[in-house]
Amino acid sequence: MNPMKVGLLGLGVVGGGTWSVLTRNAEEIARRAGRRIEVTRVAVRDVAKARARLGENMAVSTDVHALVRDPDIDIVVELIGGDTLARELVLEAIAQGKHVVTANKALLAKHGNEIFAAASERGVMVAFEAAVAGGIPIIKAIREGLTANRIEWLAGIINGTTNFILSEMRSRGLPFAEVLAEAQRLGYAEADPTFDVEGVDAAHKLTLLASLAFGIPVQFDRAYIEGISQLAQEDIAHAERLGYRIKLLGITKRRPDGIELRVHPALVPAERLLANVEGAMNAVLVRGDAVGPTLYYGQGAGEEPTASAVVADLVDVTRLHTADPGNRVPHLAFQPDAMSDLPILPIEQIHTSYYLRLRVDDRPGVLADIARILADRAISIGSMIQEPSNVGGADIIFLTHEALEGNVNQAIASIESLPFVRSKVTRLRMENLT
Amino acid sequence: MNPMKVGLLGLGVVGGGTWSVLTRNAEEIARRAGRRIEVTRVAVRDVAKARARLGENMAVSTDVHALVRDPDIDIVVELIGGDTLARELVLEAIAQGKHVVTANKALLAKHGNEIFAAASERGVMVAFEAAVAGGIPIIKAIREGLTANRIEWLAGIINGTTNFILSEMRSRGLPFAEVLAEAQRLGYAEADPTFDVEGVDAAHKLTLLASLAFGIPVQFDRAYIEGISQLAQEDIAHAERLGYRIKLLGITKRRPDGIELRVHPALVPAERLLANVEGAMNAVLVRGDAVGPTLYYGQGAGEEPTASAVVADLVDVTRLHTADPGNRVPHLAFQPDAMSDLPILPIEQIHTSYYLRLRVDDRPGVLADIARILADRAISIGSMIQEPSNVGGADIIFLTHEALEGNVNQAIASIESLPFVRSKVTRLRMENLT
Repeated sequence: MNPMKVGLLGLGVVGGGTWSVLTRNAEEIARRAGRRIEVTRVAVRDVAKARARLGENMAVSTDVHALVRDPDIDIVVELIGGDTLARELVLEAIAQGKHVVTANKALLAKHGNEIFAAASERGVMVAFEAAVAGGIPIIKAIREGLTANRIEWLAGIINGTTNFILSEMRSRGLPFAEVLAEAQRLGYAEADPTFDVEGVDAAHKLTLLASLAFGIPVQFDRAYIEGISQLAQEDIAHAERLGYRIKLLGITKRRPDGIELRVHPALVPAERLLANVEGAMNAVLVRGDAVGPTLYYGQGAGEEPTASAVVADLVDVTRLHTADPGNRVPHLAFQPDAMSDLPILPIEQIHTSYYLRLRVDDRPGVLADIARILADRAISIGSMIQEPSNVGGADIIFLTHEALEGNVNQAIASIESLPFVRSKVTRLRMENLT
Repeated sequence: MNPMKVGLLGLGVVGGGTWSVLTRNAEEIARRAGRRIEVTRVAVRDVAKARARLGENMAVSTDVHALVRDPDIDIVVELIGGDTLARELVLEAIAQGKHVVTANKALLAKHGNEIFAAASERGVMVAFEAAVAGGIPIIKAIREGLTANRIEWLAGIINGTTNFILSEMRSRGLPFAEVLAEAQRLGYAEADPTFDVEGVDAAHKLTLLASLAFGIPVQFDRAYIEGISQLAQEDIAHAERLGYRIKLLGITKRRPDGIELRVHPALVPAERLLANVEGAMNAVLVRGDAVGPTLYYGQGAGEEPTASAVVADLVDVTRLHTADPGNRVPHLAFQPDAMSDLPILPIEQIHTSYYLRLRVDDRPGVLADIARILADRAISIGSMIQEPSNVGGADIIFLTHEALEGNVNQAIASIESLPFVRSKVTRLRMENLT
């Protein structure tokens, strides 16, 4: 069979990796796919640099629009990032009847509904395995491997930068700012780390996973997002002493009245596999009603891990491009006419358990008053530690049973207004993951 | 679209689970697959029992041959087990132009080459996700998710019974026989546990995984198989003290001159995720050249976890049954005309590191003589413990660096013939998994 012809938009980290993997493993890939997959055209900003890497015979130009319109190209791989030009080019490629492979989570989290609708309309595929958790085939697992299941929830470590930072904060007892600076030196964190450390990148990915799990449209703007920049070393240490580790989790859960969709640091029991995912690694735990819990682990970023997912998509598209579109796996796992209209729940309506830490005067009646406030909001205490603070007064940590977040917010406000409470209440969510 | 019609051979644990999942999640599955998947005919030994479960309207009979010949059936699901009648029925279904879904690892490990060849010839699919690691979509991950990679090796905990036994032996300090008896009482082990505890079941599954990873024909008869029935509690305790856990691993590795294919207990560093897979859970660690390490975890057996994989296969077959067979994913991941002829290496030719334990007289020169024997066979010692035995003499444990198994065998024979060596040498393999 003729080779499948691929046009590459962008030759950065993932683009370069895609080129390397396709070239080095050309034989192995063709033995599996039954035909060769060849990059025949590349569009980049720096043509000379690209030529130095790809050789003089490659068709390289700066003209991204010409590439997506090139009638000889079967599949456009969008690896330029961002959501303005990328959106334009992806829609243009679709309009030209080309299949698209992309690693662009921001683009799909924000414009996925528009892009998938356009692709379905035109009968082409938009594949995006590389957009979530790098080389881990998590999209394929949810969309195809677990297709028999009513998915109940999933929870993932889907940002390597923050997991690296949290691992270092815990194992070396260092504060956030110090570890972040080191991560930046090592290249694990960007110069402007906001997207990673504030949870935005994880929320992009979680938005896509939630749509795949529950068949809901992508709704990034409804996600609750809380990062790790405010996380105190002392809470990591307290958590460890209590048998927990703090991870930045993306969590989405089906409730009778809607879908929870939230990214935040969470205490996880230390014996869970997810708690033991260290450094820049990613992992996603998915619970289906038939299969029970399943977990997928691997490198969530990097040149070749991400390229591994891009190339897997290229092979999938190659296999399916002659298939009747109705028989292809739907973009968001469910047929476009069978999507769910379950709403995303506001954060006040989620149910989980909580870690609450505060400093109080050490005198009679304090605990009774706080316990009363919690009880009045149906917040049940699972365990509690009180110990003298070295700056006077006492530190109290409550671990609650499952409660409604709105009630917890009210309780925290009431507690903070008590005269003998000396601090703000530090609140972290806890996930049992069973 | 018309429903896809499925004939079910067998209504045991997995057959019953398949029926339950297809029925309970019919809506969810149809929303994904775009059409309904319905069991329309069942063949079982006990018709009355099946009718009690499936209702009076289901076509139930004992005639398995009539089912595979029924022109109204699109897909035959073989869940009767064994490799005699099952082989006959699967080949008959293929000859009738029907697609087959099976959970039968013994059948495919022994007769896979014949069955896949017949299916390719006839242009039908034989899907077997449920044959390995229950509900974990590991076959899909290797065959499709990691398709860009040259797979270097994989190592898996792919038998829940033995993992349960090993977990209990370690955590409760009990000997094999006692834990096995308890596992039998709890239903985690069969009355005749040989297939599980001697590693045969794991070897069936590993045989299939090796073929998928490396594109070699299934060669169960070449697998090296060693179970856990001879494993001493004291070695589990020693391993733990040294920072390792003992797991029954299925390991397959690509070497320049062939493929390692082996099932045996192995010491794994305690901090590895695989070492922390406890109870009856399964997990497979796969290393690809591009993606690096990836791990897949979940329930490896049981009614609904296994049914989850059977139904995923049914959906895949439903999607692809109208596709050009040349565009389907090949049975063993590689195109039939592009398989590898790399041989399976005999166990003497594998390379790994070793744990060696022996009892010696406590007198000068002992260690020097043993160390000389190891050095003469190019076996380098990584670490060593010597301590007085409570029955006199001294116990020595060596942890070696990577060595050739044939050399280790020779060294063990020489060591055991030394006059001051009081015991056989206990030899366990060690896997670093990096």
